[in-house]
Amino acid sequence: MDRMATRRIERTQESRRLLVAAAAELFAEKGYRQTSFIDIADKAGISRGSIPWHFGNKLGLLEAVVDDQLQTVLTGFPSSPGELPGDSLDQVMSFIRLPATRLFITLLAEVVEVDSPIREHYARLHAALRQTVRARIPAEALPPGTTPEAFTVLLVGAIIGVHAQWRVAPEAVDLEAVRAAIRALLPAGLRQP
Amino acid sequence: MDRMATRRIERTQESRRLLVAAAAELFAEKGYRQTSFIDIADKAGISRGSIPWHFGNKLGLLEAVVDDQLQTVLTGFPSSPGELPGDSLDQVMSFIRLPATRLFITLLAEVVEVDSPIREHYARLHAALRQTVRARIPAEALPPGTTPEAFTVLLVGAIIGVHAQWRVAPEAVDLEAVRAAIRALLPAGLRQP
Repeated sequence: MDRMATRRIERTQESRRLLVAAAAELFAEKGYRQTSFIDIADKAGISRGSIPWHFGNKLGLLEAVVDDQLQTVLTGFPSSPGELPGDSLDQVMSFIRLPATRLFITLLAEVVEVDSPIREHYARLHAALRQTVRARIPAEALPPGTTPEAFTVLLVGAIIGVHAQWRVAPEAVDLEAVRAAIRALLPAGLRQP
Repeated sequence: MDRMATRRIERTQESRRLLVAAAAELFAEKGYRQTSFIDIADKAGISRGSIPWHFGNKLGLLEAVVDDQLQTVLTGFPSSPGELPGDSLDQVMSFIRLPATRLFITLLAEVVEVDSPIREHYARLHAALRQTVRARIPAEALPPGTTPEAFTVLLVGAIIGVHAQWRVAPEAVDLEAVRAAIRALLPAGLRQP
């Protein structure tokens, strides 16, 4: 590939990255519906015509934003089954502090509207979080009567709900103490050695 | 008191109740900021001049709405310390199905905005939920290293976060199985006999 072609690709990937970052920030701030292509292009400093070129439509852009955030969040997750305890739990908990997670709350409010066009996309975000946690839960570590699926919903739910409380009143939520409580309550097979 | 005075009071309390119900529905649907006194009065079928008379201002109305919702939610909570397990847990879980709880998600999105005027009011909602749960957790039932405060944040968080997942994709969340998982993971002193 000649140098000019390489630079064209770099510019394209760079402009895509800038658009995704600008959209993530604006969706978090104003919500999905309230944000226009013009807002996003202006913030990214890129012509608005390039948005359909990169993403097809606004839902395609949302998908790119959600995928991108998901990657950031999932980086904090441990990679092997049975690896939830110990330092990995610290990583999972540290996701709560990511500025990006505010976006999840803003979008959630739109998702609970009747006939929300972004429901399916958001559902995929939750599903991906559950899938990632689920893959790391050995069924044999759970107490009788507890399915790995239900345990996963509960653990992902705890992270979402602790996050919500911390966003509203950080001074009322001692994340360190909550982490210790999760660790103490985990079934023995998932607890730190 | 004569009959006309009694009827005036009834009408006043009834109009207050209608205004709170209309506001709760509109806040859940459109958010706090997007809802005007005109919308609320029209929906309640009551003159808009009566809103400041009853509630002072819009924040006063929000406070009345949150108090009202809180009463509905807290009705599901057990009333004595150490009473979380068993049927009481069923009641706590059943709060997830209340239509009213959608309001909490819509308002939460506004609360995470910079300089949100309703943050303090919303923080009181979370604080009241925690206080109610906290009062029912005997410290001696918790595993070492777990504070009642952290356990409370975790349990309230689990309810909030399971609720969020269920709102987004009810078919992906088996509330019955999640309840069984919570019960199995509760420390022995809080578990159903």
